[in-house]
Amino acid sequence: MSAFASRADEFRPSPVRAVFEVARDPSVVSLAGGNPDLSVLPADAVGDLAGTLLRGRAGELLQYGSGAGMDELRQLVVKLMARGGSTVTEHDVLPTTGSQAGLDLVTKLYCNPGDVILAEGPTYVGALGVFGAYEAEVRHVEMDHDGMQPEAVAQALDELAAQGRRVPFVYVIPSFQNPTGVTMPEERRRELVAVCAQRDVLIVEDDPYALLGFDRGEPVPSMHGMDPKHVIHLGSFSKIFAPGLRVGWMAAPPEVRGRLQIAAESVVIHPSNVAQSLVTSWVGSEHWQPALDRAVELYRERWTAMEEALTQYMPESASWTTPTGGFFTWVTAEQLRGRDILADAVAHGVVLVPGSACYMDGRESDAVRLAFSGVAPARITEGVRRFAEVLKAG
Amino acid sequence: MSAFASRADEFRPSPVRAVFEVARDPSVVSLAGGNPDLSVLPADAVGDLAGTLLRGRAGELLQYGSGAGMDELRQLVVKLMARGGSTVTEHDVLPTTGSQAGLDLVTKLYCNPGDVILAEGPTYVGALGVFGAYEAEVRHVEMDHDGMQPEAVAQALDELAAQGRRVPFVYVIPSFQNPTGVTMPEERRRELVAVCAQRDVLIVEDDPYALLGFDRGEPVPSMHGMDPKHVIHLGSFSKIFAPGLRVGWMAAPPEVRGRLQIAAESVVIHPSNVAQSLVTSWVGSEHWQPALDRAVELYRERWTAMEEALTQYMPESASWTTPTGGFFTWVTAEQLRGRDILADAVAHGVVLVPGSACYMDGRESDAVRLAFSGVAPARITEGVRRFAEVLKAG
Repeated sequence: MSAFASRADEFRPSPVRAVFEVARDPSVVSLAGGNPDLSVLPADAVGDLAGTLLRGRAGELLQYGSGAGMDELRQLVVKLMARGGSTVTEHDVLPTTGSQAGLDLVTKLYCNPGDVILAEGPTYVGALGVFGAYEAEVRHVEMDHDGMQPEAVAQALDELAAQGRRVPFVYVIPSFQNPTGVTMPEERRRELVAVCAQRDVLIVEDDPYALLGFDRGEPVPSMHGMDPKHVIHLGSFSKIFAPGLRVGWMAAPPEVRGRLQIAAESVVIHPSNVAQSLVTSWVGSEHWQPALDRAVELYRERWTAMEEALTQYMPESASWTTPTGGFFTWVTAEQLRGRDILADAVAHGVVLVPGSACYMDGRESDAVRLAFSGVAPARITEGVRRFAEVLKAG
Repeated sequence: MSAFASRADEFRPSPVRAVFEVARDPSVVSLAGGNPDLSVLPADAVGDLAGTLLRGRAGELLQYGSGAGMDELRQLVVKLMARGGSTVTEHDVLPTTGSQAGLDLVTKLYCNPGDVILAEGPTYVGALGVFGAYEAEVRHVEMDHDGMQPEAVAQALDELAAQGRRVPFVYVIPSFQNPTGVTMPEERRRELVAVCAQRDVLIVEDDPYALLGFDRGEPVPSMHGMDPKHVIHLGSFSKIFAPGLRVGWMAAPPEVRGRLQIAAESVVIHPSNVAQSLVTSWVGSEHWQPALDRAVELYRERWTAMEEALTQYMPESASWTTPTGGFFTWVTAEQLRGRDILADAVAHGVVLVPGSACYMDGRESDAVRLAFSGVAPARITEGVRRFAEVLKAG
């Protein structure tokens, strides 16, 4: 039969995919998936809302909609983004079929095969899949406890420019980063924006965790709010409401937003009206903030349980990041280097994301990502205990 | 700021997009959009169903799901495809975020920039957007009253092979084609499958209208059923239930399905669980078939109204196809050649899809697509009368 396109080599199963199959076994403790806890959602209230919306607006919600998304959702996004200091209007906002789709679209619009994307080292596994699909290379930029280092970004951009390499954008997850849990402080964000603006390079700010700070204070100001002309912002309702609906958004200058919309229409025609209206009605209701506060309280308790277990069980040489929100910590240990840690962990009844999966080049890594968001404290303790056994057995 | 990728030139507004804005004006008769009539759906029943699903299964439906789609939906698709003679199993089926997403994925998996896709001339406007986004060329193959001509496909494939051009697939809409309304008979389908199989070229069969025959008989056998190894089938729930949910599917051999799934996960992670379960529950319920039968009865009445109006108002030189199902007819008239027919039509209070939009090269066309699916008979008559005025004024 017809041969695949050259990019098809990127569409092969990765070892990390197998994790999520294994994680279905109830005897296995999964510290792999970044799932939100949905036990905080009152199912009756959500069901009533969906029923009411469809009974009242079936002819509109079940029919074809606009590629620009629904006005009501775009108005809600304007309000949400104001909390991060962005003064966007509805015309800057494009609802998407999840924030992953936004990342796909911005890569499609900006990235030629062979381009070099700068990203944190380590970065989100799913972003590497997108960049691979467009045959981009990724240059990982070093991080410290405040996230991506602006001076390292400047150096990489200047080197790549000197080599004549095209850099379509710098990809950053500034809040409670996936996979490290680290957050960039405001000052660091301003420095990064300045570095990129000076060189006229776009920043793609992927910010699904911004509202999940354990202290329940306002989020650190977004880079989009600092320089909306040089930053495209990706937002998501998956972590603050429900991933199963697949609703996210992009914010970009109007001319760019228009191109992104046309690119999006060629993939999905428009985002689901039913999903958009359910998100708008829920997140716009009095139910939303209390449910989110309860969820974050759970995440905080779970992180506490994980931190205590790490302190109790990990070998002396191990270290880990201290997230102040979000879903993840990044554990580094010399015993991890040079091992197929995933296979060993599965054999001990625990799954996690190996550090090597968070680098485009699959480099050897002495770290793993542990997620605490979707697992009860006692199971977290048991999972970390098993993980410590894996390290001892190495 | 960062420059766009080379493919970004494909993401510019087309003149046809403006149609759908104009069509919102209630004084304008829209014969442009291929919208299903949703008045047949009992809003209370659909709303009750959605409410019940979410109240009972919120924790599952609102959470992350599988990139493979939901088992229940794949089982339903197996049954639906059996009506077209396909003996697929669940392992061959991949639910997608609408059938447009399926077309995007198959193009992404198979098509390199500069490849040549064979498609009907004319073809679906939205397919041209996808093919453009992957920088493919399109060679339009001549049609007659039985659809795409297999001998013309054979000749084009042989010519392109002799030129060393790569042809990733032949794209066909076999039932009640968009935009012509023409249906390929079974024998013609077998000939086309044989032509492509002999040359080991894939067929992409886009079949959203198959169940919309006015006679309410079983559909013409699908090409996928004739040769599942050489045909990828795209299916949709948009025309038989509700486009606003964005649910469709692909059927492909398991190895190909696996690659398509990985490509899909990098764009949307997984299709919406809420949308998939609502589609499964509705189309699997006793409500579905009677509502679909009522909708098709409306389409048949509307086509009758359009045919009568065309007979009454069109100039002698005009001709049109006679659809036996679906949403569209294709009207040819010498008065259309060389005119900006869309602008003239809007000035007369009617919108339609100009024939030139249905060709990749935007060639001059002496035809238009008229849709009868979403407009009441009296409005159809008025719309055709206005269209006839446009022709006289030319």
